[in-house]
Amino acid sequence: MRANRLCDAQVTIIGLGLMGGSLAAALTRRAACRRVVGVARREETAQAALTEKMVHHVTTALEEGVREADLVVLATPVRTILTLLGEIGPLLPPGCLVMDVGSTKRAIVAAMDALPATVEPLGGHPLCGKETSGLEAAEPALYEGRVFVLTPLPRTSEPALALGQELVEAIGARPLVLSPDRHDYLVAATSHLPYLLAVGLISTAEEVAAESSLMWELVASGFRDTSRLAASDVTIMMDILLTNRVAVLEMLHRFQRHLEELTTLLGNGDEASLQLLMDAAARRRRMLFR
Amino acid sequence: MRANRLCDAQVTIIGLGLMGGSLAAALTRRAACRRVVGVARREETAQAALTEKMVHHVTTALEEGVREADLVVLATPVRTILTLLGEIGPLLPPGCLVMDVGSTKRAIVAAMDALPATVEPLGGHPLCGKETSGLEAAEPALYEGRVFVLTPLPRTSEPALALGQELVEAIGARPLVLSPDRHDYLVAATSHLPYLLAVGLISTAEEVAAESSLMWELVASGFRDTSRLAASDVTIMMDILLTNRVAVLEMLHRFQRHLEELTTLLGNGDEASLQLLMDAAARRRRMLFR
Repeated sequence: MRANRLCDAQVTIIGLGLMGGSLAAALTRRAACRRVVGVARREETAQAALTEKMVHHVTTALEEGVREADLVVLATPVRTILTLLGEIGPLLPPGCLVMDVGSTKRAIVAAMDALPATVEPLGGHPLCGKETSGLEAAEPALYEGRVFVLTPLPRTSEPALALGQELVEAIGARPLVLSPDRHDYLVAATSHLPYLLAVGLISTAEEVAAESSLMWELVASGFRDTSRLAASDVTIMMDILLTNRVAVLEMLHRFQRHLEELTTLLGNGDEASLQLLMDAAARRRRMLFR
Repeated sequence: MRANRLCDAQVTIIGLGLMGGSLAAALTRRAACRRVVGVARREETAQAALTEKMVHHVTTALEEGVREADLVVLATPVRTILTLLGEIGPLLPPGCLVMDVGSTKRAIVAAMDALPATVEPLGGHPLCGKETSGLEAAEPALYEGRVFVLTPLPRTSEPALALGQELVEAIGARPLVLSPDRHDYLVAATSHLPYLLAVGLISTAEEVAAESSLMWELVASGFRDTSRLAASDVTIMMDILLTNRVAVLEMLHRFQRHLEELTTLLGNGDEASLQLLMDAAARRRRMLFR
């Protein structure tokens, strides 16, 4: 390890969108590490991050950005992370910790395992986000109070995991160590399925509105909230779905069974059985939030 | 008509929950009518509405509440409205306008048509609501800026419709005249389908959590919003589903087709076709809100 404590570390964040920009801003505002370096694809983003004092230094050159990094965080869409992991190995200084904030973990952790033995890999996924994306949407408080999943590899050392946890806690998040497979399976239910339901809802409404465009007049807060995730960044979501296909397909099948049950009960006018399901869902939802 | 202008009318609101309480409060605060009378089922609710100055007079006796009403608004769950419509006829003064705020209109308007010829019926459905219910959740601003559907009957006179529209505008809402069938068909897509998707999502998550209760730790804002409607009042939702079965079943089938398409495309890894659907959904969702 090049640095065992966050306060001694240069943290290089690759990708200054919502997640990377918020991470940079959180570290800089809290003076949590020695130096924050940003790597942006576009010059315009790089300059904005510097102007906003989110980073101490910024570059569009990957090699320059990671040259003196003690901790590198990959904060791009999942498949870009996979590409970066295939290129970045020779550029990383020995003892460097490599993390990411990608929303699926199995494919990323597999790619991390192919990094040179001289670096320390650690998968990560903070459970926060908005349907807006990009640096303009970034905010230093994004991670506060959120769960930040960490998925260590068999080769990840204890000091590396400890430094990762220190980073998570430094930005106000709560570390939760999970295996990549378990993580991907569970978020397929809590995050990727809801996204596809939102897309399906919009597609269905679009079909009905094609017969009667007046329908859009009858859209209220229920539709707004249920469909919110459909406005998510498509590049980010596509990468998530394609790198978590098996788990997402299983959740789709499970959901379809539940929806078929509701359909059958409603078709039969089986009020007592419907009531049991609706009561249970209402209880659980109220227990989960507020 | 007993009163042609709202300012001359006694408005009696039957049911002082979220919708009825908010309507009473809006009318009273704006001094939009001569007198607001509330009819509550429970003495406790009646007293709370009086204490909060939401009504000028309150009672738990239906007969007393409607005796001198110029305009009666039924603000209970749909099947209670149907029951009330079967009982209230002989109690209503001649020339009285009878409206409701129920979320489905076909069954209610059919029951309204059986009212004595001496009264004027007019169906109504304001498109607002929260997942909370009851008088405690009531607020005078609930209707502001919302669409308020009106479904006149063939027998509804022009002055009756005009008085209904005046009520809608007095509370800051926007009247939209629709046939009951069209209304029920369209809200099945915009409101009842989203509710069932939320219930199905919670049921699916519950099943996954039964294998791994850690799953609930991974629930974030996407799941929160997509599942919000599952916390709706079950009595209200049951009445809605059972009085709009045919349209809701059609929307369920339509949705299932769209979800099957998404499932097939994801299963085949057909990125180009998935992208088209996801892009279209994102565009529409962003166009609809903000």
